[in-house]
Amino acid sequence: MEGEPPVHVLRLGHRPGRDQRMSSHVGLTARALGADRVIYAGDAAGPVETVADITDRFGGPFEIETTDSHRALLSDFGGQVVHLTMYGLPIEDCDDEIRSIHRNEPLLVVVGAEKVPFDVYETADYNVAVTGQPHSEVASLAVFLDHLFAGRELDREWQNAKRKVVPKAHGKRVEDTDDGS
Amino acid sequence: MEGEPPVHVLRLGHRPGRDQRMSSHVGLTARALGADRVIYAGDAAGPVETVADITDRFGGPFEIETTDSHRALLSDFGGQVVHLTMYGLPIEDCDDEIRSIHRNEPLLVVVGAEKVPFDVYETADYNVAVTGQPHSEVASLAVFLDHLFAGRELDREWQNAKRKVVPKAHGKRVEDTDDGS
Repeated sequence: MEGEPPVHVLRLGHRPGRDQRMSSHVGLTARALGADRVIYAGDAAGPVETVADITDRFGGPFEIETTDSHRALLSDFGGQVVHLTMYGLPIEDCDDEIRSIHRNEPLLVVVGAEKVPFDVYETADYNVAVTGQPHSEVASLAVFLDHLFAGRELDREWQNAKRKVVPKAHGKRVEDTDDGS
Repeated sequence: MEGEPPVHVLRLGHRPGRDQRMSSHVGLTARALGADRVIYAGDAAGPVETVADITDRFGGPFEIETTDSHRALLSDFGGQVVHLTMYGLPIEDCDDEIRSIHRNEPLLVVVGAEKVPFDVYETADYNVAVTGQPHSEVASLAVFLDHLFAGRELDREWQNAKRKVVPKAHGKRVEDTDDGS
């Protein structure tokens, strides 16, 4: 978020077709919950388009990239690498420490699809579990970001939005804004 | 969770094939993050099987049901209905109130797929937005449950688990337990 060291989200193991919607949801969740950029490893044209379209309509800043080599990205990253995995250390035991590190350093948050290569577990500075139960990389990412930003991300301001939702107790209200020019 | 009024999660609008994995992740997230039951509206044989299999291996209690009539379920529910939608009121403005209500009343948390029928917005006691941005029903459910249970769900105890993950800083460790007989 603005004024803070950047938070990047790396989505590993995207398989075109099969992972299309999950990978789109990873990118949209990263954007909505305070990350600055999503990076897809591999051929993720569909998710890239979906997230770019939402950013165009609902605002940014938010960056979307792809990479052919997640290994180079992980080993060269100038900050701390946090891999979200059910096999890692409980989030409730390490979120304070990671929050404190993030005051001064960028984070790269890694989420996989079904199988994550073993070197990711070794390279990561932190392997973090949002429970040790099998559930969803989207759910893990959401809880992790909400803990990291301690709720500040929930009312983030958006720039260059063409559309804006106006909260309602019942029903839907969306406004066109003048900010999208 | 044990000793508290139950929390049910209703997954609306499941379309076989297209929503298979998202609906599975809704159920797995509900289970992992403290809900007591997932109810799928419609023909959700795939997700039902996935969530039942994980519950069998990693423990419960957790119930999985399907319904043909979400309308009857919503109108007859003996507790508060919370619909998660980007058009609703900000979670940060209503989570205290819902947490307080849940001390005495069951909750039915409703998450949709792409299009949610308008009557759901009308019937719900609360329409709650985890940001007013388009992202993911799985992410919204995760953040909502984590706020509702205030992190207590993260180290929930499991019964009748055949397998248990042992947290590790690097690598993977899974133990067979004696509890699964």
